[in-house]
Amino acid sequence: MSTLSPSRVNRTDASDRLLHAASEILAQRDTLEISVAEISARSGLNHGLVRYYFSGKEGLLLALLKRDAEKALEGLRQLVESRLPPARKLELHIRGVMRTYFQYPYINPLINHLQQSNEENASALAEFFVGPLHKYQECILREAEDAGLIKNVDTRFFYFLIIGACDQIFKCRRMLGKSFGIEELNDSITDEYSDFLYSVVISGISAP
Amino acid sequence: MSTLSPSRVNRTDASDRLLHAASEILAQRDTLEISVAEISARSGLNHGLVRYYFSGKEGLLLALLKRDAEKALEGLRQLVESRLPPARKLELHIRGVMRTYFQYPYINPLINHLQQSNEENASALAEFFVGPLHKYQECILREAEDAGLIKNVDTRFFYFLIIGACDQIFKCRRMLGKSFGIEELNDSITDEYSDFLYSVVISGISAP
Repeated sequence: MSTLSPSRVNRTDASDRLLHAASEILAQRDTLEISVAEISARSGLNHGLVRYYFSGKEGLLLALLKRDAEKALEGLRQLVESRLPPARKLELHIRGVMRTYFQYPYINPLINHLQQSNEENASALAEFFVGPLHKYQECILREAEDAGLIKNVDTRFFYFLIIGACDQIFKCRRMLGKSFGIEELNDSITDEYSDFLYSVVISGISAP
Repeated sequence: MSTLSPSRVNRTDASDRLLHAASEILAQRDTLEISVAEISARSGLNHGLVRYYFSGKEGLLLALLKRDAEKALEGLRQLVESRLPPARKLELHIRGVMRTYFQYPYINPLINHLQQSNEENASALAEFFVGPLHKYQECILREAEDAGLIKNVDTRFFYFLIIGACDQIFKCRRMLGKSFGIEELNDSITDEYSDFLYSVVISGISAP
């Protein structure tokens, strides 16, 4: 496979291709075990470009999460701004988080890795992902409260509850068969779990 | 500091001391960054004993989690077998999970690490921790259902919800200030969050 040097390819195109290659490789794994050589081979680009554009593998992983988080947050922004009823927004938000984790199985380990690796990564993650996600959830909750549907809810605790509950089934991926008799984490089980979560949460915070 | 070789110390005593040293060091950190040299220095035992008793650092970390999980599960077993009302058992279970994560801040990263590291670790974790925890939760739920307090609940989904929700606030530890205005993860905030979780869950699954 021919590999191209920085001078031969457009910056955006090359960094996109590296991210796309890493995403494709990681989507087939449930760990972050990936080498620069693999990314280089899959993208058809010189391995030096990973250092050139992302200062190394860690930087590439952060950029990859940022790319996917932006897509997910844009979907959430559209949901928040839509004219759907507030309860339906909450339901679709839960389904959206589950679908994002399902489509990109590496997102969950990547978030774990980045928030526990060092202060700088945790801070970046807070800025481009956790903060905005929390803000959008606040909007959905305030709207539901104003409509008299739910009581006043601590939005910080709501975040930990929803995101933690969605995280966990993916985090347990390797133990689902052995501990829970779930043979495969497929569309059907993630849908069922989304239904369960929505039903518990909406009853759990409904206005008296 | 003098270090002792295998022949000079009793097996149980030495492996306990190594685990105790590792626990003390990790309790002051929020990562799993720990070296065999540090464990050796803190315990006053020869660093070769880590390999001798645990086949290396990974084995020691697994043994440490097993030790702490056994303590936590014994507390849960006593709770399940107690004569307390079922709703109170559920409340105390949530508080117990939160307190365990609070007292041993390394448990959460350790579980993440072990379940994502390889099949063998994930399988061990399923056996000594996830499986028994799920069984005890099932007992609490069945009792509450028999008492007419809650509806029939998918115990697998209940596990993901409770454990995930408890996990998340600790997982976000480094972002709490920046994204949520929580300066410190202390007793008071973990109590408040336990109250919130219990209230959402008990209302969310209560019998119609």
